[in-house]
Amino acid sequence: MTRIAILGATGYTALELIKILLRHPGAEIVAVTSRQEGQPHIAMIHPSLTARLDLRLEDLSPAEVAARAECVFSCLPHGASAAVIPALLDAGRRVVDFSADYRLNDPAVYEQWYGLKHVDAARLGKVVYGLPELFREKIPPAQLVANPGCYPTTAILALTPLLKAGMIDPKSIIIDSKSGVTGAGRTLKLTAHYPECNESISAYNVGRHRHQPEIEQVLGMAAGTTVEVVFAPHLTPMDRGILTSAYAQPTREVTEEKVLQTIRDFYEDEPFVRVVDHLPGTKDSTGTNFCDITARVVRGRVVCFSCLDNLIKGAAGAAVQNFNLMFGYGETTAL
Amino acid sequence: MTRIAILGATGYTALELIKILLRHPGAEIVAVTSRQEGQPHIAMIHPSLTARLDLRLEDLSPAEVAARAECVFSCLPHGASAAVIPALLDAGRRVVDFSADYRLNDPAVYEQWYGLKHVDAARLGKVVYGLPELFREKIPPAQLVANPGCYPTTAILALTPLLKAGMIDPKSIIIDSKSGVTGAGRTLKLTAHYPECNESISAYNVGRHRHQPEIEQVLGMAAGTTVEVVFAPHLTPMDRGILTSAYAQPTREVTEEKVLQTIRDFYEDEPFVRVVDHLPGTKDSTGTNFCDITARVVRGRVVCFSCLDNLIKGAAGAAVQNFNLMFGYGETTAL
Amino acid sequence: MTRIAILGATGYTALELIKILLRHPGAEIVAVTSRQEGQPHIAMIHPSLTARLDLRLEDLSPAEVAARAECVFSCLPHGASAAVIPALLDAGRRVVDFSADYRLNDPAVYEQWYGLKHVDAARLGKVVYGLPELFREKIPPAQLVANPGCYPTTAILALTPLLKAGMIDPKSIIIDSKSGVTGAGRTLKLTAHYPECNESISAYNVGRHRHQPEIEQVLGMAAGTTVEVVFAPHLTPMDRGILTSAYAQPTREVTEEKVLQTIRDFYEDEPFVRVVDHLPGTKDSTGTNFCDITARVVRGRVVCFSCLDNLIKGAAGAAVQNFNLMFGYGETTAL
Amino acid sequence: MTRIAILGATGYTALELIKILLRHPGAEIVAVTSRQEGQPHIAMIHPSLTARLDLRLEDLSPAEVAARAECVFSCLPHGASAAVIPALLDAGRRVVDFSADYRLNDPAVYEQWYGLKHVDAARLGKVVYGLPELFREKIPPAQLVANPGCYPTTAILALTPLLKAGMIDPKSIIIDSKSGVTGAGRTLKLTAHYPECNESISAYNVGRHRHQPEIEQVLGMAAGTTVEVVFAPHLTPMDRGILTSAYAQPTREVTEEKVLQTIRDFYEDEPFVRVVDHLPGTKDSTGTNFCDITARVVRGRVVCFSCLDNLIKGAAGAAVQNFNLMFGYGETTAL
Repeated sequence: MTRIAILGATGYTALELIKILLRHPGAEIVAVTSRQEGQPHIAMIHPSLTARLDLRLEDLSPAEVAARAECVFSCLPHGASAAVIPALLDAGRRVVDFSADYRLNDPAVYEQWYGLKHVDAARLGKVVYGLPELFREKIPPAQLVANPGCYPTTAILALTPLLKAGMIDPKSIIIDSKSGVTGAGRTLKLTAHYPECNESISAYNVGRHRHQPEIEQVLGMAAGTTVEVVFAPHLTPMDRGILTSAYAQPTREVTEEKVLQTIRDFYEDEPFVRVVDHLPGTKDSTGTNFCDITARVVRGRVVCFSCLDNLIKGAAGAAVQNFNLMFGYGETTAL
Repeated sequence: MTRIAILGATGYTALELIKILLRHPGAEIVAVTSRQEGQPHIAMIHPSLTARLDLRLEDLSPAEVAARAECVFSCLPHGASAAVIPALLDAGRRVVDFSADYRLNDPAVYEQWYGLKHVDAARLGKVVYGLPELFREKIPPAQLVANPGCYPTTAILALTPLLKAGMIDPKSIIIDSKSGVTGAGRTLKLTAHYPECNESISAYNVGRHRHQPEIEQVLGMAAGTTVEVVFAPHLTPMDRGILTSAYAQPTREVTEEKVLQTIRDFYEDEPFVRVVDHLPGTKDSTGTNFCDITARVVRGRVVCFSCLDNLIKGAAGAAVQNFNLMFGYGETTAL
Repeated sequence: MTRIAILGATGYTALELIKILLRHPGAEIVAVTSRQEGQPHIAMIHPSLTARLDLRLEDLSPAEVAARAECVFSCLPHGASAAVIPALLDAGRRVVDFSADYRLNDPAVYEQWYGLKHVDAARLGKVVYGLPELFREKIPPAQLVANPGCYPTTAILALTPLLKAGMIDPKSIIIDSKSGVTGAGRTLKLTAHYPECNESISAYNVGRHRHQPEIEQVLGMAAGTTVEVVFAPHLTPMDRGILTSAYAQPTREVTEEKVLQTIRDFYEDEPFVRVVDHLPGTKDSTGTNFCDITARVVRGRVVCFSCLDNLIKGAAGAAVQNFNLMFGYGETTAL
Repeated sequence: MTRIAILGATGYTALELIKILLRHPGAEIVAVTSRQEGQPHIAMIHPSLTARLDLRLEDLSPAEVAARAECVFSCLPHGASAAVIPALLDAGRRVVDFSADYRLNDPAVYEQWYGLKHVDAARLGKVVYGLPELFREKIPPAQLVANPGCYPTTAILALTPLLKAGMIDPKSIIIDSKSGVTGAGRTLKLTAHYPECNESISAYNVGRHRHQPEIEQVLGMAAGTTVEVVFAPHLTPMDRGILTSAYAQPTREVTEEKVLQTIRDFYEDEPFVRVVDHLPGTKDSTGTNFCDITARVVRGRVVCFSCLDNLIKGAAGAAVQNFNLMFGYGETTAL
C-alpha cells in the first residue's frame, strides 16, 4: 500500500486521479491539498466524491506533505509546482508532476513560453518525460516524473513511429488538434462559459500554445533533428477528449498500408495504444487510458489521427501508469 | 412577388430556406414537394413551421411545378435533382439547385466522385457556380444556378484571395474542416444518432469526400493552375456551423498583416464576408449569412480560419442571395 | 423611426434584442450602455455583431440617455434598473424594463424575495405587466412596461385559460420548469461553467426562485383568488429554451379534449401562441417569438406543457412586441 | 470465476455491462449474442471495446448458450427475452433479465401496457424484482432476477421511504423525470437523431410510458395500498443520466429535516444510495452505480429529487449488483 498526497485537488485532473486511485488496490490517498479553498470536505468541491473519499482539503507545507505521503501527485499550475517539488524531493519523496514545470529541457525555452523564470532550472534536462511508450525503462528508478501534456501525448504518439522510421519530413508537420472543454480547467473564464462555447468550435492560441515547444522537443528526439511544427488547437463543445489530425510530407513515396504497419509495429506490445483501421472518434477512448491511432495517405501526403481522453491518458491515467511503473505495480493496474 | 416552389422540402436546408423566405417581402412559397412522405401538412414534418406556412407536401411532376412557380429551389439529393431540372428549365423556369449535380464542370469527375452517370452531362461546364463573392456578375442573367457546397464555401472564400495574389503554393493546401451534425442531413444514420456523435469528434471520408473535387475546381480557377488539396472533414458535436482551418506554404516570405490585408482588400465591399482580427467561433455567424475569416502566419506557414452557418451561408442563405440577384431584389434582402 | 437606447447591453438578452431591432424597419439603435466595460465597440463584447452595429458601449447618465432616445430598453439587473428608470420617465421617455423591478405589485413582496428595499416603491402596482396576451389593451398608452420573466411567461400562458375557466384548483399547481443555460446570464459562475453543467441536469432554487411570487401574482389575477404554486426550476444542458410542465387538480372531471379546447379558444386570435396537439420540444420555438402549449389529462389530473425561447418570447421578443404596441407598429413587426 | 453470456449485445446497456464485467475479478464473458448482425467481432459494433474483449457476436440457441455459460444477462427487448429465458432456466442456468418481461406481476397489466400476450405468464408474480435496496434477501437464492427499469429505480428509491413511513399520500404522486438520450436505445429513430434532440427538451409518452405500471406496482408494495402516479418522462439533450423530480402531498405537516431524515435512515447502510443535502445534478453520479437523493418541502408539499446513471444504476450496474448477490461476490465488486 502506497500512501499518496495530491496537491491542488480542486481541479478536474485531480478529480479524475482520485477516481482512478480509489479503485487501485495499492493506493491510499492520505492528503488532498488546496491553497485557496479553506478546509472544506473534498465532496463539497467535487460532489461526485460524496461517500467515496472522506478527506478535507488542507493547506499543507511540503514538509507536512512529505511527513504523510510516500508519493505525491502535483496538480498545481506551472510555477506553483516547481515551487514545492524540490522540497519534496529533498525529503526523499517521489513525485509525479502534472504541470509543465519539468517537461522542457531548456530553461530559456521555459521562460520564453511560460513567461516566468524557472525556480529550479538546474534540474531541467534531467527529469524523465513520463510517456511510458517512449521512455518506459527510465520511469521505474525515477524520483520525479514529468507527466506529459494532453495535446503533446496525442501528437507524439502518432508521429514518433514515422519520424523514427525517417518516413516523414520533420519540417513539414502540421498539427490540428480538437479538445473538449475540461482541458481549459475549472477556473472560470468566458471562453468556458456554457453559452459561449456550447454549439461552437473555434481555434485558439494558434502558434502560441505552450504545448508547441513540448511537442517539438519530444518529436525532435524521435527525429534526431530539430522539429518545428504548426500547432493549431481548437476548443470543441464536449466535456473531454482530444482528436489530433496531423499532416506531414513523406520523405519518399508511401502507401497507407506501409504507414499503418509502421505505427502498428512500433506499438505492438503497448497495452494502451490501439492502432486501428477505422477513423476513431474521441468517444471510443472516453473514460479509458487508451490512445487510438490511425493514418491515411491523401494526395501523397500522410495524415495521422490520434484520440484520447484528455483527463485520463492525457493526464490522470498517464500519471497512474507512471505511478505503477515507479512503485512496481502492474502497469495497467486500475486503468 | 415571386412564386416559389421548393423540391425536397423535408430536409434541414429546405426548412432553413422556408424560414428565410417567410420574411422575404418578394417571395411567396406556393409549393413544397416530397416524393416519400405522402401529403402531410409541412408542419407535421417540421413542427417549427406550425402557424407559419400553411401548405401540404405534394408529389408533383416537373410540369406541375412549372405551372405554379416562377422560381424553383431544388433541395433534392444529387442524381434526383438532375433528373427533374432539365424539364423545369425547358419550361422556362429559373432554378437554384442545392445539390452537387451542376457544380462540377467535368462529367467524368462527377461520375468518379458521385458514382453515377450524369443524366444532363451536356449542361456541365455552362452552369454558374452560385458564389456571388466570386461570380456575382454571372448570376443575374442565369437561368440555373448551382448553389455551392457548405465546405467548399468556407475553403474557397478563405483561400481565393491568397491564390489570386500568388501568395500561396497551390500544391501545398491542407483543409481541416469541422462541421456540425445538420450537415449530415435528416436521414437517419448511426453516425448522426445522438448517443454516437454527442460528446465526440471524429474525422470521416478523409480524402474521399465529394466536396474535395469541388474545392479543387474552384480554387483552380482562382490559381489559374491545377490545385490539389488534402481535405479532412470532421463531425463535431453541435447542430450547425463549419470551421475550416486551412494550411498553405507561402510562395514568398509573408507577414500576418500582409496576409490579412490581402483578404480584407479582396472582400472590401462584400456584405457577407467579415474579415476579422480575432479567431472566430462558429457561433459568431450562427443564424446569419456571414462568413468570418481570419489568418495567421505560424513558423512561416499561412493558416486561414473560416466560419459560417452551414445551413445558411453554406446552403439556404446563399441560395436566397442568389435568388435576390437573379430576380432583382436587393442582395441582402431577408438575410 | 424610433430612436432607441439599450441599457446594460453586454448580456444575452440585450444581444438578442439588438439582433431583433436590426431587422425592425422602425427602430434605430442610438445608444448602448454599460457601466463596467469601458467604451469598447459593441462587437468586442458580442463578436456576432461585427459589421452589423457600429456603436461603442458608453457609460451614460439617465439625462444623456433621455437626450438621445425616445424609447429605452433597460437590460440592467434588478435594483440597478429601478435606480435609473424614474429619471427617464420624468424626462418623458418611454421604457421597457427587462428586470423584475416593476413586475410585482407589493413592495413588501419585492423586498422579501429580492432582498433589497425598492427605491421607487410608490410606482409598484401601477405598472403594466407586459404580457400582451393578457394585458394588450393597457400597453399602447403605457409609459413604462414591465417585461415578464421567462419562466412566468411559460407558466402564466399555460395556466391562465384554465384558471379563468375555473377548471383547475388554484391551490394544486405544481410547476416543473426546465431552462437552457443562457437563462443564467453572461456573468461567470461555476454552475454555468461548461464542464459543470454540460451533460447534466439539476434542479436549483426550488421553492426559493424569484419568479415564484411573479407567477403567483399574475395567476392570482386570472384565478380571482390567491394562488400558491410549487415552482421547481431545472438547469438543462442547452443554450436556450424553456419547457414548463405544469400539474394541477381539476375542479371537476375533465377530458383532454375539453382542456385543450379551452386553451385553444382562449388564444384563438393570438399571433404568438400556438396551441398544438403534440408534445412540443423547445427547439420548435427556438429563434422565434412563439409560445407552444399543449395539455394532457393523466389519471384524472391536468398536465400542461409550454415551451418558448427564453431569450425571445421570454425576454427580447416580448419586449419588441411591447415596443410595437407602444409605438404603433404592427405587433408582429420584426418578430 | 463465473462464465457469462450476454444476449442482445449490440445495445448500450450491453456495452456498459461488458465494460463493468471486464473489471470484475469473478466474471468471464464467454459469449455475446445478436440475432441481426451476422458474426462481426464485437469491436466492429462497439469500437470502444477494441483490444478489450476478443469475441464475435453469435446467433446462439438457448441450448448453446446454456452449454457455455453459468449466468446469462439478457439485454433482449421485451417479448424476445421471455421467448428464450424459460429454456435457459429449464437448463439450470441463472438469469438477470434487463427487459420488462418479468417485472410486472399481472399478465393482464403486461398485456395492456406492452401490447402483447406474455408467453411465460405463469411465472409472473414469482420473479424477484432486482432492486437490492428493497429486496436484497430474495436475490441470492433467485434463479431469475428481473432487473428494474431506469425510471422506476429513481422514483421507487426516492418515494419508498416516505410511503413506508406513511408520510405522503399514495394518491398524490406526480413524477416528472428527465432522461438522457441513451435511454432511447441504439435503434435509429428520428427523436434520437442528433439535430432533432440536441438543444431541445420535450416530454414524451406522458401517461402512456410503460414504466408507469412498474412504478405503481412497486410503490404499491411500499404503501400497502394501490398507488396511482402521474408519470411524465422528458427527453433531455445529454448522453446519460436521469433526474426524477417527484411531488407528493404529505399526510400530515412535515419539515424538510424530517423528510430528509426519514430517507437518510432508510438507506443508512446502503452502499449505493447517497442521501444528500444539496440538489444533485445527474453528473454527480455519471459513470457510477450511485443513486443520489434529496428532498425539499415547498408550500407544504414534499418534493424529492433523485439522480442516477441510467446505464449503470438504471441498468448494467444494478444487474452486476444483482449478479454479485446471486453468485456470492461482494455486492460492490466492480461497481
